[in-house]
Amino acid sequence: MSVTKQLIVGVDVGGSKINAVLADPDGNIEARSLKDTLAHEGPDAVIGRIIEAISQLISGADVAGIGIGVAGAHDTQRGVITSSPNLPGWHNTPLCDIIQREFNLPTYLQNDCTLAALGEHRFGAGVDVDNLVYVGLGTGIGGGIIADGQVYTGTSGAGGEIGHMIIDVNGPPCKCGSSGCWETYASGTAVAREAVRQMEAGVPTAIRRYAGGDVNKVTAQTVFQAAQDGDYIAHELISRTAYYLGVGLVNLVNIFNPELILIGGGLAKMGSLLLDPAIEVVRERAFEISAKAVRIELAQLGDDVGALGAVALVLQKKCGTDEGE
Amino acid sequence: MSVTKQLIVGVDVGGSKINAVLADPDGNIEARSLKDTLAHEGPDAVIGRIIEAISQLISGADVAGIGIGVAGAHDTQRGVITSSPNLPGWHNTPLCDIIQREFNLPTYLQNDCTLAALGEHRFGAGVDVDNLVYVGLGTGIGGGIIADGQVYTGTSGAGGEIGHMIIDVNGPPCKCGSSGCWETYASGTAVAREAVRQMEAGVPTAIRRYAGGDVNKVTAQTVFQAAQDGDYIAHELISRTAYYLGVGLVNLVNIFNPELILIGGGLAKMGSLLLDPAIEVVRERAFEISAKAVRIELAQLGDDVGALGAVALVLQKKCGTDEGE
Repeated sequence: MSVTKQLIVGVDVGGSKINAVLADPDGNIEARSLKDTLAHEGPDAVIGRIIEAISQLISGADVAGIGIGVAGAHDTQRGVITSSPNLPGWHNTPLCDIIQREFNLPTYLQNDCTLAALGEHRFGAGVDVDNLVYVGLGTGIGGGIIADGQVYTGTSGAGGEIGHMIIDVNGPPCKCGSSGCWETYASGTAVAREAVRQMEAGVPTAIRRYAGGDVNKVTAQTVFQAAQDGDYIAHELISRTAYYLGVGLVNLVNIFNPELILIGGGLAKMGSLLLDPAIEVVRERAFEISAKAVRIELAQLGDDVGALGAVALVLQKKCGTDEGE
Repeated sequence: MSVTKQLIVGVDVGGSKINAVLADPDGNIEARSLKDTLAHEGPDAVIGRIIEAISQLISGADVAGIGIGVAGAHDTQRGVITSSPNLPGWHNTPLCDIIQREFNLPTYLQNDCTLAALGEHRFGAGVDVDNLVYVGLGTGIGGGIIADGQVYTGTSGAGGEIGHMIIDVNGPPCKCGSSGCWETYASGTAVAREAVRQMEAGVPTAIRRYAGGDVNKVTAQTVFQAAQDGDYIAHELISRTAYYLGVGLVNLVNIFNPELILIGGGLAKMGSLLLDPAIEVVRERAFEISAKAVRIELAQLGDDVGALGAVALVLQKKCGTDEGE
C-alpha cells in the first residue's frame, strides 16, 4: 500500500501541552489528542503521556510513521533529546527508540522550529518556496531553515540557532553562556524583562494593571494587552523589540537571501504592531537586492505548526520531499 | 566527447589582477594568463583584457566552458554584474553574454567568495565536506556557503553576505548603509583604521616605520609585519581583530552548525596569530554541540581559489555536482 493512503502521527511536545495529531499526507487533521505536559513530573511521566496520546490516535488507523517535535538541542541522527528548555530533567533521553519500540512504527525526532519550517513549507505559507527561514519568537528565539527546497539542520542537526546570533558584542549575558544574543533583545523574555525594569523604576504604565500589580506576572502578553489599551510605555517596549527583531532579520536576509521569512511563536500574536517596524529596519539596512526579494510574514499554521511539521518530517523521511505533494 | 576529457577556463577578476587558468576537471592547472586589471580604465578596457586572457588559454584546446568570478553583487541568473567593489563603473554589465558571444562557449558568472567555497569544496580543504562556510577576509568580508553538499546562494544569488551581519547594534556606520556590520570590525580595512587611530593619537608603534611614516600607507599587512617584529600595539590590534572575527564565527557556527569553516583572503596570511584566538571565542561562546563539530582552518587554494572555483562552477553547471569527481 502506498504511503500516501496511510495516515501519519505528528506530536508536538511543548512546555505546557502535548499536541498530537493524526493527519493525512495533505496535512488534514483527522483526529487530535491534547494533553497537559506537566513537565515538572519528569521524563517518565511525560513519556507515558506521549504514549497515551499516540495510542488514542492510532487505534484502528493505518499509520505510516510517527514524527515528534521538541524544543532544544537534539541528536536527531540517533533520535535522542540532548536537552530541552521546556523539559527539565531530560538529558540524552532516547525518545525515538522508546516510541518506536512501543508502537513498532518508524519514528523521527526533530527540533520544534525546524519542524515549524518544514510544516509551513509543506502545508502552510511556504508551499513552493525554496528558501525560507522560520523565526519562532517565544520565551527564546528559535529558527528553522529551508535551503533550496530542503530542510537544513547542519552537521550535527544543531543548526538554525538563530536566536544566538550575537547582535550586540557589548550586550548582556544570555542563558546560553554567550552574551548579546538576539534573543536577549527580541524574545518574549526580553519584552517582559524591560517592562519589569520600567515598573521597578516607578514609570506609570497599564502593564502593572494587566499583571495584577505583580512584576512576576509580567509577560510579553501583558505588555501587548497594555499596548492595545493605548499604553505609551507598552507601545515603546514593543517598538524597541520590533527594532531589535528587525536587526536580526537584516542578518538573516543578508546571509540567506530568502524568499520568505515566517514569524511564528507567541510574539507573532502581536501582528503588525511588531512586524511592520521590523520590516522597516530590513528595508533600510539589508542589501537592496535581498531586501527586495524577501517577504516577511506571519506563519500560518498557528498552534498546530509543530505537530504538522512532525507529520511533514515523516513524509519527508519515508517518501522523499517530492512525493505526496 | 565526455566533458571529463575537456578542459575548463576559470577567470578570477580581482581589483588588481585578472587570474585566468585552463584546468582539467581535477583542478590541475595546465596554463595560466595573469594580467593587471587596471580597473580604473573602466569596463570596456577590463573586458578587453579578460577576452585577451581567455583567448591565450583556449587556443587549440578543447574547452567545455568558461567560469568567471567577480567580487560583489550579481544577478547570476542573467550573468550580469550588478555592482562590484573592485570594479568602479561597472553597473549591470552583462559580462556573461559578452564572453559567451565572443567565444561561443557556455559561460557562467558567480560572486568570488561563493566560488572560493565551491573551489575549496571541489579541489581544496573542503572535499567530501557537506556543510562548509568560506570566510573571505580582505578589505571587506565575503562569504560562500555549501549546504548539504550544494552551493547555496539564495533566491536572487545574493546570499552569503556574512560580512554584513550586524554584530554591534550600536556600532559605527558601514559602507553598505547599515552599521555595526562584522566587516567594520574584522576586515583588513578595520585593522588599518584602528592602526591609524593609534598612530594619530601619538601611540609609539613600529607600524609607523613599516608604513614609511605615512598613515595613508597603513594596511593590515603593515600591521602584521609590525606584529611579527614584536610590536605590542600591532599585536593588540590583531588580537582585537581576532576577537571580533571570533564573534562573527560564533554566529556562523550557531546558524549553520558547519563541519568546516575556511578562512581565506588577505588576512588569512596572518595565520594562527589571527585564527587561534578567534577559535577560542567560538569554543567559549558557541553552542557546545556545534562548537565541537566544527573545524576552523585556513583555506588551501591560495591565490588560485577564485579561478579554480570558477572551474568548479563550470563542472557543476555542465555535469551536476557528482560527475567528474
